[in-house]
Amino acid sequence: MTETVEREIAGPRTYRNSAALVDNADPVWQAAADNGLIDIAVDHESNNRLVVPETGHAFANMCSCSYLGLNRHPAVLEGVVDAVRDTGTIELMTSTTRIRPTIQRRLEEELGDLFGAHALLSTTCSTVTAGLLPLLASGHLAPGGPRVMIFDRYAHFSMAYVKATCAQESLVLTSGHNDIDFIADACRKYPSVAYVADGAYSMGGAAALDQLLELQDRYGLYLYFDDSHSLSIMGERGEGFVRSRTAPGPLTTIVASLGKGFGSGGGVALLHNAAQAEFLARHGGPLGWSQNLSVPTIGAALGSAAIHRSPELGELQAQLRANLALFDELLPTPLSGNGLPVRRIDVGDADRAVRLSTELYQRGFYSSAVFFPIVPKGQAGLRVMIRADMDRSDLTAFAAHVTELSSAE
Amino acid sequence: MTETVEREIAGPRTYRNSAALVDNADPVWQAAADNGLIDIAVDHESNNRLVVPETGHAFANMCSCSYLGLNRHPAVLEGVVDAVRDTGTIELMTSTTRIRPTIQRRLEEELGDLFGAHALLSTTCSTVTAGLLPLLASGHLAPGGPRVMIFDRYAHFSMAYVKATCAQESLVLTSGHNDIDFIADACRKYPSVAYVADGAYSMGGAAALDQLLELQDRYGLYLYFDDSHSLSIMGERGEGFVRSRTAPGPLTTIVASLGKGFGSGGGVALLHNAAQAEFLARHGGPLGWSQNLSVPTIGAALGSAAIHRSPELGELQAQLRANLALFDELLPTPLSGNGLPVRRIDVGDADRAVRLSTELYQRGFYSSAVFFPIVPKGQAGLRVMIRADMDRSDLTAFAAHVTELSSAE
Repeated sequence: MTETVEREIAGPRTYRNSAALVDNADPVWQAAADNGLIDIAVDHESNNRLVVPETGHAFANMCSCSYLGLNRHPAVLEGVVDAVRDTGTIELMTSTTRIRPTIQRRLEEELGDLFGAHALLSTTCSTVTAGLLPLLASGHLAPGGPRVMIFDRYAHFSMAYVKATCAQESLVLTSGHNDIDFIADACRKYPSVAYVADGAYSMGGAAALDQLLELQDRYGLYLYFDDSHSLSIMGERGEGFVRSRTAPGPLTTIVASLGKGFGSGGGVALLHNAAQAEFLARHGGPLGWSQNLSVPTIGAALGSAAIHRSPELGELQAQLRANLALFDELLPTPLSGNGLPVRRIDVGDADRAVRLSTELYQRGFYSSAVFFPIVPKGQAGLRVMIRADMDRSDLTAFAAHVTELSSAE
Repeated sequence: MTETVEREIAGPRTYRNSAALVDNADPVWQAAADNGLIDIAVDHESNNRLVVPETGHAFANMCSCSYLGLNRHPAVLEGVVDAVRDTGTIELMTSTTRIRPTIQRRLEEELGDLFGAHALLSTTCSTVTAGLLPLLASGHLAPGGPRVMIFDRYAHFSMAYVKATCAQESLVLTSGHNDIDFIADACRKYPSVAYVADGAYSMGGAAALDQLLELQDRYGLYLYFDDSHSLSIMGERGEGFVRSRTAPGPLTTIVASLGKGFGSGGGVALLHNAAQAEFLARHGGPLGWSQNLSVPTIGAALGSAAIHRSPELGELQAQLRANLALFDELLPTPLSGNGLPVRRIDVGDADRAVRLSTELYQRGFYSSAVFFPIVPKGQAGLRVMIRADMDRSDLTAFAAHVTELSSAE
């Protein structure tokens, strides 16, 4: 094709740029693949012992988001079986805006009560984001007309993905990570602003919540948090980092995956009233299509909700804290002591991160090598997620291997 | 806010326009709500008898996408229980690009074999679309540089949703429905073009497949079909409308929901090779995040796959055809005889469609009132989906009510 035609066809690549993404990341993915680090299929008897059946290679999963180990909890598994036996169905395969099984309403009520909010369910947390954010941008979730949308630079991909869609409705900006000055400036410049961010970040750390709430008080800043990485692990009822500190309201929405600490699957929006939920079910695109949160998943979530009401939740949270304390003692990182379960072992160079991950995998521990675009360029490393159901001996051994391998390089 | 600032903030609204959507649709949704047609929670003993527990009102579901009734099939339900018991897990809660349970690989192989393709799984079909289409637009799935993306005007919302994201990478156009001349013109004008459409349309009818394949032969047109509404119901192994007639290839991708005729949940891309699947798992955004297709859903799908290999599939397809023939005889519509299960009873005016749906619901039949933006303005009506497990007596009674109520207006 002539260059002129290509220029005519090519998009602006303001909010995404596949070529930059692929050109940078694919060689590293390929190195990971060459070292056997991706496309691994396993049997497993616990989260600490996954086995590749072809080779018998066994390893501990150091990067599962099942922070409390609920993905294998008997009550969660039995929740699936009970739900399927009781209802005799997988899903209605009808738009849940119109008709849904009573067991789904039961879960909405259960989560609403547990977390002090009006709960809207969907198939995944990214579906909630995809349905909700454009309506926030267009000014349909809060007064003040089209709302300037500020995405934190480190906001999860599932939020960054909808930037272009939001930009159809309003001005979209990207702030530095936790850049309160940038957000404050925008609040002074524009009549209505929203800030879109993780609560607890998928790559570690947390939102600057106190300062953000101050901006909300002063300027009416709308706050949208995906708090998937802290749900269940913090708070008396597992309400998570953000919900422990503030409530959903006319200018605050919290969403979360139920497929991480919570141990089931699907996504939830914690809203401040039923009217907002109904509005989103009507107009929130994927929130209204007939892709249902399945009955088995609802059953798992009900099983998990019961654990959240029992003393066991506190025990599991305490185990997680103890494992985190041990890890932080053995392998101090800049994230040490933050009370959240994601840790990063900084390496810098992507190839070196892949090498380290490979060595560790061979020694029986899978930790994710993370590199651009998962983390910024030059900040490659290993991502480790601490869980309540990790063995202290495994953590100790893992830390020793990391220390040995890092000093050897 | 001043008008100037609002103008500065407001987006171009080229690919979506929340205000137009909400302003047009909400009054009709409200009328539906006022008539008790949305937000219905039910118990049910079959797809033909849903019961509102508070009132005891019982009705048949005339708008479930479970075209073969597999959402309640014992083998599908037992598939869930077996998978959970065998694996002892809900999901690994780790990016499946890195690690996935062997039961997921088993389902990939099973679907690949069943449908003659390389199968890539995800949480929903819309997730597959969201991950794949921007990479098609940017020129990463086929040679020829950025690819002009033509979306059929009636392509499902889950595809239309990603227009703005695709437009970041390439020129995005919207064609009339099945407007072959428009597509051919674009093929002559631009060096590489893709056409994005339903195979069997969610609101009835099908793609103009023969003519599209001709354009593919002549101009290298990439064809992307979401064939969710015909999977399982057509073809010896339930391969659906498009796959019965053509295969995935370097310029053809078929995606489908497993949560409709197939009776389980999740989404699948039928690709032409493993390399494409791996590329998408690496770079396809939501296809690589750690939102997993859950083990219970995989179990349901394995149960359904076994039915697809048995003579029962043909029997269920025949029952569906018989029910369709009966419906078409009783209530002829422009879609009669097309072999697909979606029917529309045209009403025209949205309020009248809501009234008709209300009357039918009170008489024991839920059919969806559909209106803008679900269908074009002025083309409101009832959407009815025929299933294999409908009772002939229910169909006969439903048709009689429609005839009576329509003539009374």
